[in-house]
Amino acid sequence: MPCQPLSDLHIWKKLKQHAQLIDQPEKHLRNLIREKGRLEKFSLKDAGIFYDFSRQRTDEKTLELLLELAETRKLKHRFKAMVSGEKINNTENRAALHTASRDFSSHPVVSDGKDVMPEIRRVRNEISAFAEDIHSGKITGSTGKRFKDAVVIGIGGSYLGTEFVSEALYAFADKDIEIHYLANVDIHNFGKIVSRTDPETTLWIVISKSYTTAETLANTKQAYAFMEEKGIDPAKHVVTVTSKGSPGDDPSNPVLASFHMFDFIGGRYSVTSAVGGVPLSLFLGYDRFERFLKGAEEMDNHAKNAPASKNLPLIAALISIWNNNFLGYPAQAIIPYASPLCKLAPHVQQLYMESNGKFVTKDGEFLDESAGLIIFGEPGTNAQHSFFQMAHQGRPFPIDFIGVINPQYEQFQSESKGVTNHQELWANLISQPMALAVGKEDTNTAKAFPGNRPSSTLLLNDLSPENIGRVLAFYEARTVFEAFVWDINPFDQFGVELGKTLASDIRKEMAVKNNNKEHHFDEMNPIARFYADTLFSGSF
Amino acid sequence: MPCQPLSDLHIWKKLKQHAQLIDQPEKHLRNLIREKGRLEKFSLKDAGIFYDFSRQRTDEKTLELLLELAETRKLKHRFKAMVSGEKINNTENRAALHTASRDFSSHPVVSDGKDVMPEIRRVRNEISAFAEDIHSGKITGSTGKRFKDAVVIGIGGSYLGTEFVSEALYAFADKDIEIHYLANVDIHNFGKIVSRTDPETTLWIVISKSYTTAETLANTKQAYAFMEEKGIDPAKHVVTVTSKGSPGDDPSNPVLASFHMFDFIGGRYSVTSAVGGVPLSLFLGYDRFERFLKGAEEMDNHAKNAPASKNLPLIAALISIWNNNFLGYPAQAIIPYASPLCKLAPHVQQLYMESNGKFVTKDGEFLDESAGLIIFGEPGTNAQHSFFQMAHQGRPFPIDFIGVINPQYEQFQSESKGVTNHQELWANLISQPMALAVGKEDTNTAKAFPGNRPSSTLLLNDLSPENIGRVLAFYEARTVFEAFVWDINPFDQFGVELGKTLASDIRKEMAVKNNNKEHHFDEMNPIARFYADTLFSGSF
Repeated sequence: MPCQPLSDLHIWKKLKQHAQLIDQPEKHLRNLIREKGRLEKFSLKDAGIFYDFSRQRTDEKTLELLLELAETRKLKHRFKAMVSGEKINNTENRAALHTASRDFSSHPVVSDGKDVMPEIRRVRNEISAFAEDIHSGKITGSTGKRFKDAVVIGIGGSYLGTEFVSEALYAFADKDIEIHYLANVDIHNFGKIVSRTDPETTLWIVISKSYTTAETLANTKQAYAFMEEKGIDPAKHVVTVTSKGSPGDDPSNPVLASFHMFDFIGGRYSVTSAVGGVPLSLFLGYDRFERFLKGAEEMDNHAKNAPASKNLPLIAALISIWNNNFLGYPAQAIIPYASPLCKLAPHVQQLYMESNGKFVTKDGEFLDESAGLIIFGEPGTNAQHSFFQMAHQGRPFPIDFIGVINPQYEQFQSESKGVTNHQELWANLISQPMALAVGKEDTNTAKAFPGNRPSSTLLLNDLSPENIGRVLAFYEARTVFEAFVWDINPFDQFGVELGKTLASDIRKEMAVKNNNKEHHFDEMNPIARFYADTLFSGSF
Repeated sequence: MPCQPLSDLHIWKKLKQHAQLIDQPEKHLRNLIREKGRLEKFSLKDAGIFYDFSRQRTDEKTLELLLELAETRKLKHRFKAMVSGEKINNTENRAALHTASRDFSSHPVVSDGKDVMPEIRRVRNEISAFAEDIHSGKITGSTGKRFKDAVVIGIGGSYLGTEFVSEALYAFADKDIEIHYLANVDIHNFGKIVSRTDPETTLWIVISKSYTTAETLANTKQAYAFMEEKGIDPAKHVVTVTSKGSPGDDPSNPVLASFHMFDFIGGRYSVTSAVGGVPLSLFLGYDRFERFLKGAEEMDNHAKNAPASKNLPLIAALISIWNNNFLGYPAQAIIPYASPLCKLAPHVQQLYMESNGKFVTKDGEFLDESAGLIIFGEPGTNAQHSFFQMAHQGRPFPIDFIGVINPQYEQFQSESKGVTNHQELWANLISQPMALAVGKEDTNTAKAFPGNRPSSTLLLNDLSPENIGRVLAFYEARTVFEAFVWDINPFDQFGVELGKTLASDIRKEMAVKNNNKEHHFDEMNPIARFYADTLFSGSF
């Protein structure tokens, strides 16, 4: 059933009024954070994450109104419907069951009248056994050598989440297998990877739900041609992660192993399925992959069960809506003070912008408020030396700071100015949100800081596999909770179709030209024709 | 002399009115691009770059008005003043002479009554000779082994530009020296680099103008401690790039070599100085570094000499101002369809956001229009599979597409669907700006595309060192031209100071605590104290 348009909602109107109040000088963050018990009232701790929103431009009334909005839009109800297998991806008539991929309970999860859990457990077991066989040397390449490099061929959701996790847990990678990502069809990527790997010890993991993704197929063909040229049998060097019965799961085209993915898990939510499971189990060992899953499961359960006012991703979603639709910030940065989390921002950039970069509701009504935000970010302190000039004095944008209490490397304890490097990092993590919030007056306007710039801070005790799973599931849940407020479908992505269709037309024209140099691109519009001609002529 | 506020300018008001016209349905991009000769009128070709702005939301009148704005704000005049050594960085009383670092003419460049060119040439010659000695094996590490790894210790402008260039020209790196970047004070970075390198064959390049940057000093101390522990003599494994007479240029603390940088070149503009020159010459050879400089010089000369209407970076700046201040887009993406340019967006993110993320004019007046934009981006087609859903159907943002006609790898020519991978890449490069501009109607609103989303396309004939220099200088010139419109100083960055000051206070408190476990953080506000306590307690 379609929801009421947001701007018609009584609570939405109340929030709009309240936003004017928060814009008053007495509600400047430098005043808000001085209130007694500010941190205690505006922070939560559960499911392995400490979440501090005391430096957001919210007072107690704001939270109260936002929680009313959550109630009105039935956020928790919808989350439960999602987790329980309802076809919440209504435009594609599918469930959205990424949570099932890390469900270790014994409960059934029924979708389309069928419990999906046995299949999910089967795939997990297959991954575990396969990783074990690779690590023990039972399975080797076609010349009998152990695999030392795994190349993931997959684009978008088929690699961004996995790349985030493999970077985050790099310190655990003790299986003597390096991981590489061949996402882009750009031949530079292929060239760089094959210049660094030995074809005899390289395993190619092709990841595509439909096995029709143009980039992935083109790279797979290139990899096959390369292996054949090097005298390597692709059937012993390729595994696929794909839908049952897709062209990548075809016995007439044998591969070393094929792992199934399911239509009820979308690409950008798929790192806890075989999409992440196969490469991460090879890289880290299946046990660590399972620990990662269990962290994600814990956050899922928290998101499902915790009351709204104690629910980390739900509160984070409400604050994001508040910043976006009421305070008018069009972007948000994610700044982890932990370099292993360097790929979190690119992952959430996809997860969030592809899910929520929509202009119609799930029922096809045009939105009356802007959904989605631009997400970007780099690790701190790097970001401080890059774009934080703007964060402090230019166009403001809210920030999620992320801190890790115990680093993965304990052995380097040299001190500079009386503190270790990790303490130096934390001195900055502590100071930046404060500087942004409080600001500073100065008669020299160039050296004045307006302050009142909102941020949250998330803490993890360490970078364990469980904690990486918790962070992943936190951002997934936050993303869908926001979608539920706008009443959009965060699981489709029709916006990528038009470009694909046009590219297909252009590709066909190029293929004709490859066979017939006399072919002219007369079908194209003049601008497109200029580019096609320029490519074939070799210079502009 | 302070300029008039923008909103008082007659031409600014005319542009505001004109923007309303461009918002009319008949000025939708699908109509604009159909006009005869659209590409010819709205594209430029010079200094090795083809620049197509035919898919920007501009008509001939827009350009005419923007050129009047350029005239009013004296853009070319100010650029010439900058290049000729005027103290255009007025708040710091300095010239801004990054262009001098790639000046190969025989003309003097006078700043503060002194020709800066002899010093610049001296440093270039020193770099060339040093790189030659490293490559020939004349200079080795303290145990007599050749250097195989160079670690750049530097943050922000001391590495982002260099990282962009070393990634872009990776295919040319034939000196058997790998390059690493140790920017962040995060101990994870240090740990990862030393786990991958051999101390006997590692050269550390410490880059800091003042040699007081906290992160750089902390990492340098860590590196010294590490070398000493491994029995390596730091004096034979460290070079510095720093100001004359800084603590890094102190004979009582001997290093292998020390190269000077100058106060008239800011960090984010410094890749063509010794900051980029030392690491890039080791990585690529000095000859290629010089070719890179010559490309940049060509673009500088174009920016200085080409008439406004034919001036690529000037027109690009005007279009950016148009999109920002008149059409209201708060962000811009840079999407190179060439993976070697993967670090262009992070570099320009710093260059542009640190330069233009300001809220006062160069004379300290509050701006009446927002300067600066959020810059972000990933290579295409990766970005298509990440955040392009939003680009097509969500909150719009202008895009710079970048294409490269001839890739660095010619040997992989396997075809998929009748085209090579490089052609597939181009089919996408051609289709995306068109899909964004034209859109598509559909009775199913979820599958409709509003179109009218602006983009530019830049083409390079190949990824030669010269072309990378041209791209670098293009974005530098565009950045400063925009600053000249707003009348801000793009060369200072006072916005980073407050966070540094607060971090310094917190660091001191932590240092006290390191010496006295009984010390309490009573001086801090309760929120900061919570974080400091949590770090020392080891968990939340």
